[in-house]
Amino acid sequence: MAPDDKVLRIGLLGGGTVGGGVARILAREAEDIAVRTGAHLRISRVAVRDLTRTRDLPVPDTVYTDDAQAVVDADDVDIVVEVMGGLEPAGTLIRRALASGKPVVTANKELVAQQGPALYRAAHDAGVDLAYEAAVAGAIPIIRPLKESLAGDRITRIMGILNGTTNYILTRMTEEGADYDAVLADAQALGYAEADPTADVGGHDAAAKCAILASLAFDTTVTLDDVFREGIERVTATDIRTADRLGYVIKLLGIASEVDDRVETRVHPAFLPKTHPLASVRGSFNAVFVEADAAGELMFLGRGAGAEPTGSAVVGDVIDVARNLLQGARGASESQHRAKELRAIEELQTQYYVLLDVEDEAGVLAEVARCFGDHDVSIAQVWQDGSEDTAQLVLITHRAREGDLRTTVSALGTLSGVRSVASVLRVESEGVTP
Amino acid sequence: MAPDDKVLRIGLLGGGTVGGGVARILAREAEDIAVRTGAHLRISRVAVRDLTRTRDLPVPDTVYTDDAQAVVDADDVDIVVEVMGGLEPAGTLIRRALASGKPVVTANKELVAQQGPALYRAAHDAGVDLAYEAAVAGAIPIIRPLKESLAGDRITRIMGILNGTTNYILTRMTEEGADYDAVLADAQALGYAEADPTADVGGHDAAAKCAILASLAFDTTVTLDDVFREGIERVTATDIRTADRLGYVIKLLGIASEVDDRVETRVHPAFLPKTHPLASVRGSFNAVFVEADAAGELMFLGRGAGAEPTGSAVVGDVIDVARNLLQGARGASESQHRAKELRAIEELQTQYYVLLDVEDEAGVLAEVARCFGDHDVSIAQVWQDGSEDTAQLVLITHRAREGDLRTTVSALGTLSGVRSVASVLRVESEGVTP
Repeated sequence: MAPDDKVLRIGLLGGGTVGGGVARILAREAEDIAVRTGAHLRISRVAVRDLTRTRDLPVPDTVYTDDAQAVVDADDVDIVVEVMGGLEPAGTLIRRALASGKPVVTANKELVAQQGPALYRAAHDAGVDLAYEAAVAGAIPIIRPLKESLAGDRITRIMGILNGTTNYILTRMTEEGADYDAVLADAQALGYAEADPTADVGGHDAAAKCAILASLAFDTTVTLDDVFREGIERVTATDIRTADRLGYVIKLLGIASEVDDRVETRVHPAFLPKTHPLASVRGSFNAVFVEADAAGELMFLGRGAGAEPTGSAVVGDVIDVARNLLQGARGASESQHRAKELRAIEELQTQYYVLLDVEDEAGVLAEVARCFGDHDVSIAQVWQDGSEDTAQLVLITHRAREGDLRTTVSALGTLSGVRSVASVLRVESEGVTP
Repeated sequence: MAPDDKVLRIGLLGGGTVGGGVARILAREAEDIAVRTGAHLRISRVAVRDLTRTRDLPVPDTVYTDDAQAVVDADDVDIVVEVMGGLEPAGTLIRRALASGKPVVTANKELVAQQGPALYRAAHDAGVDLAYEAAVAGAIPIIRPLKESLAGDRITRIMGILNGTTNYILTRMTEEGADYDAVLADAQALGYAEADPTADVGGHDAAAKCAILASLAFDTTVTLDDVFREGIERVTATDIRTADRLGYVIKLLGIASEVDDRVETRVHPAFLPKTHPLASVRGSFNAVFVEADAAGELMFLGRGAGAEPTGSAVVGDVIDVARNLLQGARGASESQHRAKELRAIEELQTQYYVLLDVEDEAGVLAEVARCFGDHDVSIAQVWQDGSEDTAQLVLITHRAREGDLRTTVSALGTLSGVRSVASVLRVESEGVTP
């Protein structure tokens, strides 16, 4: 099975962190990769924004250029690898490569989340591969299992910890009992969180991955803006402590499900039972939990970011695409994308945790309970808590309609015995029961 | 992307539990599968041992035959799906199918564990696909990620919970504080364990899967007999309680690693830190934890057995193989199999837990400590335990050579203060640190 002297040439768009990871892995594992591919893989061109910057990629100095389009068009580029990120010029370059019959591997989460189905169609029309394993959850093989391993199955729900920064913050808050602001500041100092952490803590990054997973799992078009989104900024040490006492942890979850032919996608912090496999996913790890009709429950865990983990996923895709190219074949396509109705968040049915600051007086509980009942939200658990000058009511509801819960919460705020609604979080207690 | 009228015909070898799962999934998801494959998949023949038995597979009665070879040879069979199990005649039938240019999908763990590399070669020589995702850990996509997603990476270690029955037993022992015999009897009554549970509790089943994973991960030939194996029969409630107090759980692990170009494979119960992702895998679930140079740590979790989970994996493979067949292409091959030296269990370096029944007298601890020291085994933790009439010493060693540990244990048995060596278990504390 030794490879002959065939060479496939890679045009790398982007010479930054991920590009460096890709180049180093290709160099380090060159021999084994050649055997597995049936050809040597060589980086023939690298497009970078700033030619004057020094780089330590294991490629000849002569391959660098600041003309990305020339890399796409070059006769000595057989496969285009896009690791520059951002919507443009990445999108135009990828479409150009596909149209000219060149397969593309991309790690561009933002682009795939916003234009995925259009890009899949472009690849299909051109009869070439578009691979994007690295765009979701870094090193975790999740796109390939969804497209191939579960091709004969029906996926009903995907639930994921899709952002490492927020999982790191929530893990430290849980394990240290610390407050959000303190842990965020420390995470920023340690480099685990960006100076502007909005994309992570606000759930935008997770929402992009959730959109890609939903599109793929349910054969439809879900874009970033379709995903309901709440961040972790308002999760308090009290919420986490309360969750713990009740047998839950708090995680930022991306959830996509298909109910009665309607697709529901959402990213928000949620109570999750400690016995759920996702509950034990600590630190900066990502994980994706999949429920399918025949396969049952599956989980995939790994590093969601970083030059080498993301590079590993890119190189796996490059080998796949290269093998197909050598055989004149194409990898598995996304299925026909059917327009499916999206379910509004108000239609969501789940359990809720509500924390109320209340007056320490008789009758409050009855007043609160009546308010829930009046709005068709049934209470599963309740207890009163508090120190000398504050009293709190903690409530967990049965499954209720989000719309009804929201009306309830508005009404709670007007009750004389309720000082404020301190927290409202969804409780995701469906799932694994081994 | 709608499929035209192409039909690919499947010859099913075996009409039992898994065969039934495959037939039901193919019927239930026929429309989506046709779109994803680019052809309709139809079961044209089913070989069964006993033609008189009634079956409820969703196929015409006319497709059944007891001549399996005729199914392999039939002109109206394009793809052979082997779900009969056992070494023979399955092995001969698969080789015959491959030699005649027909791709094969198999769920046969025993066969792949014993003859995998020879079968991979036969498929390669014939230029057709041999797919066996269902042979390891049922529904969990692990073969495809190892062969494809990590094709550009270097796998250094695989650690798995590869048998659902033993994990169910150990989980109940842990959560109920119950004894092995009681839980086993109950598991048998509930159908979670066979009347003769040897293949499961003795670690044979896990060892077969460990051999397949090791062969694939390290590009070499590891067969079932190469795998060091200990079962869970001697794990006691005391061991589990002790592990718990120290921050560990006890799991039956299959471990394959490559150290200095030598491959080490073993299946045995072990202490695993509670913070390890595998530690929270409960009940009859399986999970595989993979460590790779670039990707870092990955874990795959799911149902390891059952008609539908195994059927889902088989159908995923069938779709893959069918797509390749339609394009005249082949899927990823196993790499060249290099003969690698296997490392003997005596060379293993890990930590150990040793439980000693000792005389309740001064000087025992010193005597025991000296014995460890004399044999180059360093003690990490020790404490004395016991009730009114028994005294016990619990020891956790630092990393030591298994050969040295064994000599130590033999010597401990001869000490005047030691009544008996009650338990010796390996402690696998390397791994994930998020």
